[in-house]
Amino acid sequence: MQYLNNAWYVAAPVTEINRKPLRRVILDSPVVLYRTEAGEPVALLDRCPHRFAPLSAGTLRGDQLQCRYHGLQFGPDGRCTHNPHGGPIPRTTFARSFPVLDRYGFTWIWAGDAEQADPALLPDLRPFDQPRMRTRLGTITIPADYRLVIDNLLDLSHVEFLHPSFTSEGSLESTRHEVREVEGVVHSDRFKHDCLVSPMLRRVWQREVARGDARSCIRWHPPSNLFLDIGATETGAPPEAGVSLSLLHLLTPERADRTHYFWAVAWDPRHDAPGLDEFLEKVLVEAFEMEDEPMIAAQQANIGADVDLMALGPSLLKTDAAAVRARRVLQRLIDDERATAAPAATPPVPEEAAHAR
Amino acid sequence: MQYLNNAWYVAAPVTEINRKPLRRVILDSPVVLYRTEAGEPVALLDRCPHRFAPLSAGTLRGDQLQCRYHGLQFGPDGRCTHNPHGGPIPRTTFARSFPVLDRYGFTWIWAGDAEQADPALLPDLRPFDQPRMRTRLGTITIPADYRLVIDNLLDLSHVEFLHPSFTSEGSLESTRHEVREVEGVVHSDRFKHDCLVSPMLRRVWQREVARGDARSCIRWHPPSNLFLDIGATETGAPPEAGVSLSLLHLLTPERADRTHYFWAVAWDPRHDAPGLDEFLEKVLVEAFEMEDEPMIAAQQANIGADVDLMALGPSLLKTDAAAVRARRVLQRLIDDERATAAPAATPPVPEEAAHAR
Amino acid sequence: MQYLNNAWYVAAPVTEINRKPLRRVILDSPVVLYRTEAGEPVALLDRCPHRFAPLSAGTLRGDQLQCRYHGLQFGPDGRCTHNPHGGPIPRTTFARSFPVLDRYGFTWIWAGDAEQADPALLPDLRPFDQPRMRTRLGTITIPADYRLVIDNLLDLSHVEFLHPSFTSEGSLESTRHEVREVEGVVHSDRFKHDCLVSPMLRRVWQREVARGDARSCIRWHPPSNLFLDIGATETGAPPEAGVSLSLLHLLTPERADRTHYFWAVAWDPRHDAPGLDEFLEKVLVEAFEMEDEPMIAAQQANIGADVDLMALGPSLLKTDAAAVRARRVLQRLIDDERATAAPAATPPVPEEAAHAR
Repeated sequence: MQYLNNAWYVAAPVTEINRKPLRRVILDSPVVLYRTEAGEPVALLDRCPHRFAPLSAGTLRGDQLQCRYHGLQFGPDGRCTHNPHGGPIPRTTFARSFPVLDRYGFTWIWAGDAEQADPALLPDLRPFDQPRMRTRLGTITIPADYRLVIDNLLDLSHVEFLHPSFTSEGSLESTRHEVREVEGVVHSDRFKHDCLVSPMLRRVWQREVARGDARSCIRWHPPSNLFLDIGATETGAPPEAGVSLSLLHLLTPERADRTHYFWAVAWDPRHDAPGLDEFLEKVLVEAFEMEDEPMIAAQQANIGADVDLMALGPSLLKTDAAAVRARRVLQRLIDDERATAAPAATPPVPEEAAHAR
Repeated sequence: MQYLNNAWYVAAPVTEINRKPLRRVILDSPVVLYRTEAGEPVALLDRCPHRFAPLSAGTLRGDQLQCRYHGLQFGPDGRCTHNPHGGPIPRTTFARSFPVLDRYGFTWIWAGDAEQADPALLPDLRPFDQPRMRTRLGTITIPADYRLVIDNLLDLSHVEFLHPSFTSEGSLESTRHEVREVEGVVHSDRFKHDCLVSPMLRRVWQREVARGDARSCIRWHPPSNLFLDIGATETGAPPEAGVSLSLLHLLTPERADRTHYFWAVAWDPRHDAPGLDEFLEKVLVEAFEMEDEPMIAAQQANIGADVDLMALGPSLLKTDAAAVRARRVLQRLIDDERATAAPAATPPVPEEAAHAR
Repeated sequence: MQYLNNAWYVAAPVTEINRKPLRRVILDSPVVLYRTEAGEPVALLDRCPHRFAPLSAGTLRGDQLQCRYHGLQFGPDGRCTHNPHGGPIPRTTFARSFPVLDRYGFTWIWAGDAEQADPALLPDLRPFDQPRMRTRLGTITIPADYRLVIDNLLDLSHVEFLHPSFTSEGSLESTRHEVREVEGVVHSDRFKHDCLVSPMLRRVWQREVARGDARSCIRWHPPSNLFLDIGATETGAPPEAGVSLSLLHLLTPERADRTHYFWAVAWDPRHDAPGLDEFLEKVLVEAFEMEDEPMIAAQQANIGADVDLMALGPSLLKTDAAAVRARRVLQRLIDDERATAAPAATPPVPEEAAHAR
């Protein structure tokens, strides 16, 4: 599968990366993740250049990662800093290093040309950067093409059929649905006017009054990070007067038919209540794991391994507009990258590697 | 693998298909099976034309099957009858429908061109249509090419070695063996004269006299349905004077290396006795699952995935005559179908689909 | 994968082959192993030429192996000696027979042209032929290319990092390391002078004095059999004055990414002590299964299925000299065999087969 390499992908929740090296396959590449003694995240190709042993089986010596097989040591920049066998360290003896940074509760990795890695290219996922917000987050794995998960999220009409407890009453036909693309970001916003608000939102809202205006507004940032705002107000009131939840759906392809799915939910402390965090985690994880995942896995099985759904001529409906738009944007970005960039698989050799030790 | 598409295959026992949609892969295609409120069987491609979700995960609304993912509904003819998202229903929004019918205790599916589906092309499997007969039936799965199972059944000399309790005493060489082809149906009949009758037949016969004439006569109807008559009489008596069992071995390829194996046994009520039905089910299932299946699976492992045994040059013996004949007939039918038929994968579009709703 | 066919490989420990036919896949080919009534080992292709059933599912009738499916019988030379179905036995009805012999506690199979099988081509693995020696042996399976296991053994610097309890104290840099090739046999010898001897050797040596000269000298016989001598003496003393262990590492490719790993250890009775045999078996099996195997399996996963590590451009160091040498010798032998030999897959037809029975 062709991926967009020059982009930020989530590698793990910030707290999952520590002094015990962690292996994670991202865009078909094995990556080892750890933190320096100062707490900075590090990502290296999890493949010792000597004998292709996984560096993640090794041990940290200060900030150096020592291979468990023959004892070579590598620094956070991937340079081999110690060869216990004597002799020169060949120029090719380095582990590719990936740019990484912590933001919004997650550690992000730049999968492509390190020269182009720019924190400013991270999507804007406020309010997940605000410490006052209450949050929960987690990780699941979906055995399917990440684009099927994007399709799932950009067409939230499926909530009516797959997730009844998240559904506010009112027919799909009476739902106002707006799709737009703004500088490569695709928005799909749904509004129900004067409806019975969904059981989940009522629980967060903590009120008897269950009628009102409900919304679910999702936007997709290329290549595969989505922000969802759901909320309700009393009928006719402005959004800020009611209740709202912010959700992240951050997708990282593991390989063509397997996706790391990182999620987070944030809510304003004024909505807080005993047990709300456990409640939200429970209903979200149940929906993801017991409703979305089996459905998407079954789609993948019907589509076949490493086949693009779009190549099979699916019947597209009005409700697919956002998903189709996002797939086009994504494909254009991938095509552009392949047309203009040097192959990402040949990173520059660290200049000093030949002289190390 | 190339299959004969224009043919009836068993999809399931009649009683396995009900108001809960059932997914079954047949000739590489996922099929969803259910019954209408009137009890008629329905078979559709188990793949919503919208996003390729399995329709079998959905719910029946009367006779309409509603997709669990985005709520499209499909009728027994596969036409999309309801699109909750509004907008026209594209002409391509239909799920392929397969002809089906109930007969002989099983529900049959026509895998090819629906125009050519003709109930008169069902094999003649009397006496399984006679209500007075006592019957038992079941399903197993064989992890192998269905043609290896046909080979197994058309050369019942293997009973001597693989199923001792089904063997009537007497050498293979003293067995009279007749093979003939009658209008594409291949018969393989074996007779042992004045022998010690097999333990299984003695149990059905309920008699001390254990000597007599034994027979096992099997016939193969293309593509993969076999009828077996086994029986014994006192030496020299005509067949109708003794005991007999009728068995069906109805094979449906799931895919190249996996076969649905539906079986049934019937006996005359005059042979009935307490516990006979449990006894027969037990010995047959044990033979199929513990003797035939491991052997055929091991053959497949030795042959390799998606390889035709015949292409590997096996040593053929006199006893292979019927199996070789059947393979030739089958291959000729497949070749003829491919030469003359339009591809089965492009069924005619339902005329009214574009105007539905 | 291309293998060296004209070579002796271990099929099994001598005691594993008996009157119960044993199936083992060797160089991609299924082989059935058994002993004649006289105790001679027999190896046949585990694939009845009739219907490709595994002969290993069958039964011995004297020295004839009877197929469990249709009763054909085969002698130790692979010739079909009995066809219960009557009619002539076709010339092609034989199971390929492989030369086999018992030596050094193992049964060896010649995988290529039987004409070239010569016991003199067995590697010299003394002292494993001496009955007075105490020995232990066993079998494990490594899910990886057998050449990765050879690499592992020919670069025992990995012991410092992967097997701490086998390590004698002293830096790698102070280790004297000699690599040489003698008539296609590659030696890799390591010596540590006046060091703290490893815990394992101290246990065998049974002495308080733990300082001395330690060595580990391994040699590789093509294609994949290795002999390791480890030992220690008091500083400056000759090798025969100290303690030593002999180890065999006999590797047989099952298929491209799976290796049968047969091991043995031998020690002089003068070093014997209660529990020494169990101790040695325990520490060796733990090292192989819990340290080497996971590492080599992880290498294979990083390299990919059926990919040669060398084609991926690993960084080679001084310590790789022996492993690189052995791979070159092996590849040259394989190339020579392919250039000059007739394909091993078409063995001569037994002359008398057509006339048998």
